[in-house]
Amino acid sequence: MNCRGFRAAGVAAGIKKDGEKDLGLIVSEVPANAAGIFTKNRIQAACVLLDKLRIESGRCSAVIVNSGNANCCNGEQGMRDAMEMAKSAAKCLGISENLVLVSSTGIIGVPLPVSKIKAALPSLVSSSDSKGFSDFAEAIMTTDTVPKTVSRQGRIKGKIFTVAGIAKGSGMIRPDMATMLCFVCTDIDANHDFLKRALFSAAQRSFNRISVDGDTSTNDMILIMANGLSEAAVKDSSQKEYFQNILDDVLFNLAKKVVKDGEGASKFVEIAARNCLTKTDALKLADTVANSNLVKTALFGEDANWGRILAAAGRANVPLKPEIIDILFNNVLIFTGGVGCGAKAELRAEKVLKKDEFTITVNLNLGNQHASIFTCDFSYDYVRINANYRS
Amino acid sequence: MNCRGFRAAGVAAGIKKDGEKDLGLIVSEVPANAAGIFTKNRIQAACVLLDKLRIESGRCSAVIVNSGNANCCNGEQGMRDAMEMAKSAAKCLGISENLVLVSSTGIIGVPLPVSKIKAALPSLVSSSDSKGFSDFAEAIMTTDTVPKTVSRQGRIKGKIFTVAGIAKGSGMIRPDMATMLCFVCTDIDANHDFLKRALFSAAQRSFNRISVDGDTSTNDMILIMANGLSEAAVKDSSQKEYFQNILDDVLFNLAKKVVKDGEGASKFVEIAARNCLTKTDALKLADTVANSNLVKTALFGEDANWGRILAAAGRANVPLKPEIIDILFNNVLIFTGGVGCGAKAELRAEKVLKKDEFTITVNLNLGNQHASIFTCDFSYDYVRINANYRS
Repeated sequence: MNCRGFRAAGVAAGIKKDGEKDLGLIVSEVPANAAGIFTKNRIQAACVLLDKLRIESGRCSAVIVNSGNANCCNGEQGMRDAMEMAKSAAKCLGISENLVLVSSTGIIGVPLPVSKIKAALPSLVSSSDSKGFSDFAEAIMTTDTVPKTVSRQGRIKGKIFTVAGIAKGSGMIRPDMATMLCFVCTDIDANHDFLKRALFSAAQRSFNRISVDGDTSTNDMILIMANGLSEAAVKDSSQKEYFQNILDDVLFNLAKKVVKDGEGASKFVEIAARNCLTKTDALKLADTVANSNLVKTALFGEDANWGRILAAAGRANVPLKPEIIDILFNNVLIFTGGVGCGAKAELRAEKVLKKDEFTITVNLNLGNQHASIFTCDFSYDYVRINANYRS
Repeated sequence: MNCRGFRAAGVAAGIKKDGEKDLGLIVSEVPANAAGIFTKNRIQAACVLLDKLRIESGRCSAVIVNSGNANCCNGEQGMRDAMEMAKSAAKCLGISENLVLVSSTGIIGVPLPVSKIKAALPSLVSSSDSKGFSDFAEAIMTTDTVPKTVSRQGRIKGKIFTVAGIAKGSGMIRPDMATMLCFVCTDIDANHDFLKRALFSAAQRSFNRISVDGDTSTNDMILIMANGLSEAAVKDSSQKEYFQNILDDVLFNLAKKVVKDGEGASKFVEIAARNCLTKTDALKLADTVANSNLVKTALFGEDANWGRILAAAGRANVPLKPEIIDILFNNVLIFTGGVGCGAKAELRAEKVLKKDEFTITVNLNLGNQHASIFTCDFSYDYVRINANYRS
């Protein structure tokens, strides 16, 4: 994976105790237009507070990220440390510190070891190159079991451009399990305002569909940097739509990797709430089913336990009439008219459950509003008691 | 445990596949005044729908309960089966079927094996006696690892009365994990209206404080039967308060047993939200912290990880100012003034964490409203990854 004009790197600075990579850098050879989305948690890490201010300029040349320490709830010292981290990186890179964003992920409430970061900066900068994204992806991991990168190319007026995304986060137990970070580099020529809207829209269809409200950790952020070096420019509405689709695809696939990276999680499941009275109802319904530990353990057990789906739907606090609800596993109708569809339907549904990816539809047949949330199974040992509950 | 004029029993009717007890009966030798609280889930089992109607009379002589099958989402047949179950029990007992309540817990969507229940009824009735509560407590278990009974005595005007409670439910992953059933027998003389209010009040302080909204399964219910045979009567306000305290104590201790009965759960922890702007804020805050998987894994790891508590507080969607929040483990202040209190405080807090029971206080210092939610640790194997995250 590479993207014109971007260099990346990841090194071990000694922040993590195990000697693994824990400091990453992405730098553009020219200042990029940039936009960001930040956590809505009322407790926000220093890096979030700092970046929210800096991104207002719409410009960014580099982002420096550490794992192993969230630099959150460290009071004023935390803010000084975040600024110092950015300043030192800027100095090493020979750029203005206002063009450097910072990101941290890891333990809350432990002072950031800035001296270790400063000591590692020269080797980080010197090792950065166009092929360094995989090192970067490794350096930002915490509970992740695999690095997560997705890259797509497009073409506008004969000019090929790239959208390269790197994410971290483990989707096992809602995103409050771990900070979710995502960095998108693109060599498209696009302005700050468009990037902001496009990023928000793509996030709504990806990272904000894998949890209740998308942003629950103190450090969550999604950043996009567009340096324009491909000479492909986003101007008219069809070009905007074209780029949006590619960005959506990158973010959706990164979110999917986050969902799939629960320890041992083996399934990627769309929970589709259909024909609800309102969009809000549809989201609440899909979200409640998708986050039900009982549903997730049944998915792991490959048990077509529609009763658990219905019980979760019943506590989603949305209007519904049990007697007109349909539940489907892909195209297999398993509950309708207030009762289950019988053993044959369950056998067919269990074949669907053996797949790696499938859709569970809860059709309320009440209105015309739909929403989907993406989830995974609960496959830890502890769930055996639930997975085997019916057998 | 026994209670004047009540007989109980539990037998194996063959509903559960493992041959364990799955059919229970409580019967009062005279019709009792009764009241009930039922699930707020919009999907309600047949027994809930039936009992809600019957309890309106304020009278009940017997309750028959099966485990292994929830008789939920079985359409009209489900309702016919619930009524048949009550009718058959009434016949065996020689009482009016309107005085029989039914309760079911187990799998949703599988037809209730009424013939097995009818076949087992004669031996159930004939084996019932005043010492049968422990058999009954066993017969209503599903994922529970231990039967749960609590009994207290009181005295009004020289007359000794008993309040005997039996519950089932496993508090591991919120009460949506499993149906929560609770049956309270008392030989006090009290009318339906008082019992209803007293039960609601006691539930608010117990079962409704161990989860978001207390009632999330399709089959949850709490029933109280008061047969008056002790001749102790609740008349004036001080007697009402006296009885209320005893009932509160019974329900609180049953709820505590439910919380403690997560597989391997070893700690009973009060999450106390203090000095919030509103009561609703206090409840939301305590509930969000108490249900955070991250907080619960830290409790298991005996890790004084206040960062996770703060991060959970930050996403509870209540007004707060990080710089004036205090966090305490029992009396040990561990976070104040926007920063942690250092390694010494953490060591002291970790001593608190080694206890079986303790309180975590999150003091917002914003208002004067308080609320507590009771929770347990997450001690399953799968949580090792989180419990060890900081070590």
